Amino acid sequence: MPMTTFTPPTRILMGPGPSGAHPRVLAAMTRPLLGHLDPDFLRVMDGCRAMLREVLQTENEVTIATPGTGTSGMEAAVMNLVEPGDRVVVGICGYFGERIAQMAERAGGEVTRVQSPWGQPVDAAVVEAAVRAAGGVKLLAIVHAETSTGAETPVEPFARIAREHGALLLVDCVTSLGGMPVRVDAWGADAVYSGTQKCLSAPPGVAPLTLSPRAWDAVRRRETPCNTWYLDLQLLEAYWDERRVYHHTAPISMVYALHEALSLVLEEGLETRWARHERNGRALQAGLEAMGLTLHAQAGYRLPVLTTVRIPEGVEDTAVRGALLHRHGIEIGGGLGELKGRVWRIGLMGESSTPGNVLLLLNALGKLLREQGFKADIRAGLDAATERLGGG
Amino acid sequence: MPMTTFTPPTRILMGPGPSGAHPRVLAAMTRPLLGHLDPDFLRVMDGCRAMLREVLQTENEVTIATPGTGTSGMEAAVMNLVEPGDRVVVGICGYFGERIAQMAERAGGEVTRVQSPWGQPVDAAVVEAAVRAAGGVKLLAIVHAETSTGAETPVEPFARIAREHGALLLVDCVTSLGGMPVRVDAWGADAVYSGTQKCLSAPPGVAPLTLSPRAWDAVRRRETPCNTWYLDLQLLEAYWDERRVYHHTAPISMVYALHEALSLVLEEGLETRWARHERNGRALQAGLEAMGLTLHAQAGYRLPVLTTVRIPEGVEDTAVRGALLHRHGIEIGGGLGELKGRVWRIGLMGESSTPGNVLLLLNALGKLLREQGFKADIRAGLDAATERLGGG
Repeated sequence: MPMTTFTPPTRILMGPGPSGAHPRVLAAMTRPLLGHLDPDFLRVMDGCRAMLREVLQTENEVTIATPGTGTSGMEAAVMNLVEPGDRVVVGICGYFGERIAQMAERAGGEVTRVQSPWGQPVDAAVVEAAVRAAGGVKLLAIVHAETSTGAETPVEPFARIAREHGALLLVDCVTSLGGMPVRVDAWGADAVYSGTQKCLSAPPGVAPLTLSPRAWDAVRRRETPCNTWYLDLQLLEAYWDERRVYHHTAPISMVYALHEALSLVLEEGLETRWARHERNGRALQAGLEAMGLTLHAQAGYRLPVLTTVRIPEGVEDTAVRGALLHRHGIEIGGGLGELKGRVWRIGLMGESSTPGNVLLLLNALGKLLREQGFKADIRAGLDAATERLGGG
Repeated sequence: MPMTTFTPPTRILMGPGPSGAHPRVLAAMTRPLLGHLDPDFLRVMDGCRAMLREVLQTENEVTIATPGTGTSGMEAAVMNLVEPGDRVVVGICGYFGERIAQMAERAGGEVTRVQSPWGQPVDAAVVEAAVRAAGGVKLLAIVHAETSTGAETPVEPFARIAREHGALLLVDCVTSLGGMPVRVDAWGADAVYSGTQKCLSAPPGVAPLTLSPRAWDAVRRRETPCNTWYLDLQLLEAYWDERRVYHHTAPISMVYALHEALSLVLEEGLETRWARHERNGRALQAGLEAMGLTLHAQAGYRLPVLTTVRIPEGVEDTAVRGALLHRHGIEIGGGLGELKGRVWRIGLMGESSTPGNVLLLLNALGKLLREQGFKADIRAGLDAATERLGGG
């Protein structure tokens, strides 16, 4: 029995992703389909490749979009770089670091986990000690912007550790790309992947990925084929580069959407876009604190694009999120893993990162908290945010 | 530097996929994004699940769409069902059967390949002998509709073999689903996957997949986690069923497109849709033969949805395909693997399966062949096709 055509409600997407998509990105997906080897489609792929290099700040030849959501980028990077018996050190300060570790184990790696408390960055000194202790580490992995905790781990110290110990550096930039500085070549990162549904503001469905020449050599010198055929980077690159060897039928409409989203990012300009995310994120954080709430991530390491705020004592997590969604049309995220029920995750990513959304959220959340008996100082929150937004 | 917004040319997609998409499917992707745990989005997923069961003719509880193109469905089925050391027999009569075998090897399986000539169906007697010789076979795999050769392998004999030898039966229905009878439960198939960009006429990007209770038991009783984390069916099912455990951010817009495409399939009715594909496919084949061309696939096993035709002596493959594309706006496919340069692959799938497209292709191809010195009898071709189309 056919279902009736559905009309989704309009939501203001302020969770950990997806973020709202620009109308131009949605419209791009209505363009007629082309074959995956049509010369006109190959030009669109080449355009994506060129713009991805610019957005990722890299000259890496191997720069593609894997045919799946952000996690497909993670899986492609990990499964292709890790061979059975390889030593891998993962700096973990949240849910997604642990996911990398699990994938590296499935790839046959000997994995050392270096844990930091959820809400803090990964500790470089402890990681360096672990890398030294393990010896002969092939891959060091961290998450730049932990979507589960709202904390940033600055990349530079880990790049130095990787260089000094002859390891490759993998950096998860799913949540940071397009919203805060990601400088693949300047960092010296070897494998970087992202998603499209965070600060790039395209629908989920393809995952940007880039490999340094060093990492690409490691992939090509594997002694055994990697575990995955679908995400085998040697097969994917042979389709993305001038060889154009058939591997899979590209997700045509998603590639159109990515092309349009990258164009929008570059039209705005990376520096301008980073500054917008910074300004709106700090305004939200100032507002939440002025309302009387406590931010979860460590000061100095708070992501501008994703804010974790502690749920006050006596306030019911799902009741507040449900009312935000159904009465105000605003989606925010609950906690993940050990932070479930303890924090909310509020995203200001891509198209969703606007001054209006900052004020809307503070006002709506403040009212719902007051209904639940928490005396949020809404006026102070709005004042603090407005000041940071420059609307003083 | 941002790229200018591109406007793809309008193509008539008569290759091996993607096929043309219905305007309602393209329009579905412009609907506003929802979060992947939004109750309204979960209802869309449930709708897909119910409609997929109907289209696949199954009551299997585990019926989902994997977050990638058709090959992601193949990888999910193979990697989850095959454990290291498992015996696997693959009946191969084309490119995609070989792909299954390669994936099963990457999963650690002990793979026996049973080869048939490209253009014929898999030989059940030879497969049965191989299954008996191998002993204790866990998985028997075939491709229902070989996109590389245009040949159908009837499923029933293999279901009997699998049952009698205690093996699970995996059937690739990427090219058949929505265009010719696929009856998962009546066949007794245990793992079936498909793509969206063939006879379902949605853009590529998600892959329908269903597992019988027997296959699902085998997945859950694995002793080791499967190779892939991204396509781990136990993790995917936990998101698709009522547990709603976060695993990946669903490709929201692709799921909207799938929902609309499945609605269209069921509005047309499965029997009516199969008959349409049958009529148009046989008309094309009659027309090609009447023009003086030779069909490649064995008579009696020719797919209605994808026709392989031999390239006549002295005719240049790429020149003809290039002229079809650039002068007539028609895409057809070249040969794959050992048929490269020897056949063309002409699809009549989903929205692309129309009487008009049959006549358009015959006329355009006939003219181009005559330019190349092959005396195609265009009038005879059009007459033969018209008669089959019922317009005689």
